[in-house]
Amino acid sequence: MATPPWTRRHILSLEDFSVPEYDTVLRTAASFREVLSRRTKKVPTLQGRVVTNLFFEPSTRTRSSFELAAKRLSADTLNFAAGTSSLTKGETILDTAKTYLAMGTDMMVIRHSQAGVPQAIAREMERLGTHVGVLNAGDGLHEHPSQALLDLFTICSQLDCDNPRTELLQGKKVAIVGDILHSRVARSNIWSLTTSGAQVHLAAPPTLLPQRFIEAMGVYHPDRLHLHWHLDEALEGADFVMTLRLQRERMTAHLLPSLREYQQFFGITRDRLKHCQPEVKLLHPGPTNRGVELSSDVMDDPELSLIQAQVTSGVAVRMALLYLMGGRHD
Amino acid sequence: MATPPWTRRHILSLEDFSVPEYDTVLRTAASFREVLSRRTKKVPTLQGRVVTNLFFEPSTRTRSSFELAAKRLSADTLNFAAGTSSLTKGETILDTAKTYLAMGTDMMVIRHSQAGVPQAIAREMERLGTHVGVLNAGDGLHEHPSQALLDLFTICSQLDCDNPRTELLQGKKVAIVGDILHSRVARSNIWSLTTSGAQVHLAAPPTLLPQRFIEAMGVYHPDRLHLHWHLDEALEGADFVMTLRLQRERMTAHLLPSLREYQQFFGITRDRLKHCQPEVKLLHPGPTNRGVELSSDVMDDPELSLIQAQVTSGVAVRMALLYLMGGRHD
Amino acid sequence: MATPPWTRRHILSLEDFSVPEYDTVLRTAASFREVLSRRTKKVPTLQGRVVTNLFFEPSTRTRSSFELAAKRLSADTLNFAAGTSSLTKGETILDTAKTYLAMGTDMMVIRHSQAGVPQAIAREMERLGTHVGVLNAGDGLHEHPSQALLDLFTICSQLDCDNPRTELLQGKKVAIVGDILHSRVARSNIWSLTTSGAQVHLAAPPTLLPQRFIEAMGVYHPDRLHLHWHLDEALEGADFVMTLRLQRERMTAHLLPSLREYQQFFGITRDRLKHCQPEVKLLHPGPTNRGVELSSDVMDDPELSLIQAQVTSGVAVRMALLYLMGGRHD
Repeated sequence: MATPPWTRRHILSLEDFSVPEYDTVLRTAASFREVLSRRTKKVPTLQGRVVTNLFFEPSTRTRSSFELAAKRLSADTLNFAAGTSSLTKGETILDTAKTYLAMGTDMMVIRHSQAGVPQAIAREMERLGTHVGVLNAGDGLHEHPSQALLDLFTICSQLDCDNPRTELLQGKKVAIVGDILHSRVARSNIWSLTTSGAQVHLAAPPTLLPQRFIEAMGVYHPDRLHLHWHLDEALEGADFVMTLRLQRERMTAHLLPSLREYQQFFGITRDRLKHCQPEVKLLHPGPTNRGVELSSDVMDDPELSLIQAQVTSGVAVRMALLYLMGGRHD
Repeated sequence: MATPPWTRRHILSLEDFSVPEYDTVLRTAASFREVLSRRTKKVPTLQGRVVTNLFFEPSTRTRSSFELAAKRLSADTLNFAAGTSSLTKGETILDTAKTYLAMGTDMMVIRHSQAGVPQAIAREMERLGTHVGVLNAGDGLHEHPSQALLDLFTICSQLDCDNPRTELLQGKKVAIVGDILHSRVARSNIWSLTTSGAQVHLAAPPTLLPQRFIEAMGVYHPDRLHLHWHLDEALEGADFVMTLRLQRERMTAHLLPSLREYQQFFGITRDRLKHCQPEVKLLHPGPTNRGVELSSDVMDDPELSLIQAQVTSGVAVRMALLYLMGGRHD
Repeated sequence: MATPPWTRRHILSLEDFSVPEYDTVLRTAASFREVLSRRTKKVPTLQGRVVTNLFFEPSTRTRSSFELAAKRLSADTLNFAAGTSSLTKGETILDTAKTYLAMGTDMMVIRHSQAGVPQAIAREMERLGTHVGVLNAGDGLHEHPSQALLDLFTICSQLDCDNPRTELLQGKKVAIVGDILHSRVARSNIWSLTTSGAQVHLAAPPTLLPQRFIEAMGVYHPDRLHLHWHLDEALEGADFVMTLRLQRERMTAHLLPSLREYQQFFGITRDRLKHCQPEVKLLHPGPTNRGVELSSDVMDDPELSLIQAQVTSGVAVRMALLYLMGGRHD
């Protein structure tokens, strides 16, 4: 099968990603995973190019993953972290982005606690006639595309390590458990998994998963998306169980009675996994609250948990994304 | 015209910079701008050398600019940021500098909220018989030489992009508007612009521009420096208008009644620019308070604003400065 | 003398270091010091490898030293700093370490305010069957091996710059002065110096050096370790005087009456050094409280102080340690 050429300058949302695009990402990431298995894990692809991490919301894990991906492509990296920054001096976000543009940034990786910021910066970069690519590394409750793409890569690699591809997801059941309503990871995963052909079963307490969620989300394949307010229904026959991080702030907002009660009804334990396929695998975007979303023993069981594989996939997938975005203008 | 060899180990102040030195900086920066226009924006000039950013006062913009300049010269960079540092453990500033010296630092880029700190560190480096070069990246209310040099480069490049040089400033009028009294950027620019031959017109409320400013400053060409307490006089026939950042702290110090009143009397708007030359251009060292120092529409007008060009010039000029300082001992 | 091959994957404590191991570190560091004296101070030894600094306790000096050592071996570096990190989100320390492992870290440099954390991470890395090496960059009050090794290198280089080796320490007297009880630097130095053959004399007020210290420490050569509650006894005939940083917190804990009194009884002054050998040299791990542990004049006397030499040694010794750990699997 011939690959269509990559046409996206920005990666902002998975809402309009096509199956061939997912397959291009999976294939490219697989080739970078091969690079990462070598002793010298670098390629000169982005030598002399500048990747700027604009993290208006603090993050160590995701920023490190992008920084390492950029360094392994031989790019120079700049890190902007809110806090000690000009933002506290009254500069607007667009002005900050334009400053890094003017310094010579080729690609921007952007995280912000407000939905829409990476999109607004991408529009501004277009309006100014630049070739800068923008990658959304998490915007508010909206999307986190690179996380969902690394989840997709992890799942497909589990099904066929040498040739991860979307068609492997046909007939597979993926349960997504936790605070769906407030999760940008869940939103991006719902787009990628339903488009790729999986059956997606969401499980959460009603306060975190309202009845109208599916309509409001507007997925193109509503027949592939299912809601459950009881965990066991969602787990029934699942091939993959994706747990979401529980923000402790939800408790104070009275959306949950207590961590203990959440753990009792929605925490994944070995006992609960009996409902799933025998080969079931667990995912979590991290950082985990041990013993809340997942019991410690299932989290540490290498036969069950793909959590470490997700982190490793993250570097390969982010290399692939920067490569595809950066290669557009060759 | 043959260039005199570069003799400065440190760049601490523009007070005693000569016209040939300004021209050397402009010519060197122009050649690095050419490097930055290439796809691979790196040169091996400082390979294996260590540039340490000692920022005792927080800064994202200037530090990123120096860091990128150093990386593009292939230097290794170390970043020291006050806050999580040994300073909170009672170590003196000179001892911190000596520690980075002993690690193998070749050049130090220093910012401090107190005037004179880079000079004190440079003296200590000399006293110890080292070859380390010190660059003042902003010391209190005193000077910010690399900012004024990038402003000079931006202005001269606007007048002749291929061959920016000081003689282009003969007969040109530059207005500097804002909190002159508290601005290290203004001080450095007054030195560079008057020495280079421009007519410099300062405009500010009397609380921010005392009558005695010119004498106190002691410029060598007082005939090229003019004071105005009304903006329109300063703008009359101006070729370039340089606005300064207004520190919000000035309000609480009762030097200004309100941001609104400042904006009304000293904010640059399209209407006010009618007094200037038709080709007038605007500069601002950033970060800007949109709608205070400049109205948003003039700030975003590419026919008027050189603000983005200043940031781009910044990387080329800082590469030039590190190159000139580092090349002394070849 | 043939060198035994290096067998340690981790460097966690000096308790079980052998004399041949110390000599291997000294010889390797001497060869890297030669590299650092060149204009281009880089070697390609760790190209494509990733060294992650996991500093759960803030540090600028030690982190910069390790970062520079890694960069000069051409490794890529990642920096994790507690504070803006996932730790505040409830992730465990082992999970953080495993995340950086999964990203592709080859070596971890770990500092933590609790004793035993680097050891626990090293055990976990072993349990998981990885080849990752862990270096203890300071764990609570326990050990700080790289500091003691750079002290050893500094002392032995002082005795024979071209060929630093442990046998030079035979018959030498090293006084360690200050807050012995709370010093991980002192503990590591006691191991390295007594094993290497020096006579070590500890001096501190009784509250900071209990009678039972030697037994509790359990050194293999108790005949080489001596306690003093009066400084002059410890200094008598000393070849080297190692001063320790005084934590200001000790005052509030009522272990010391005041800085002034400490300085009076245990501060090193030129006058006090008359008790020592004429060629006596001073060391301090930094950062120093000027005028407390050491008077300013002795600290700044290049004939007396090895403090700057220690910092320079630090980069060479840390390059040697990363090289030895990383070379195990070649």
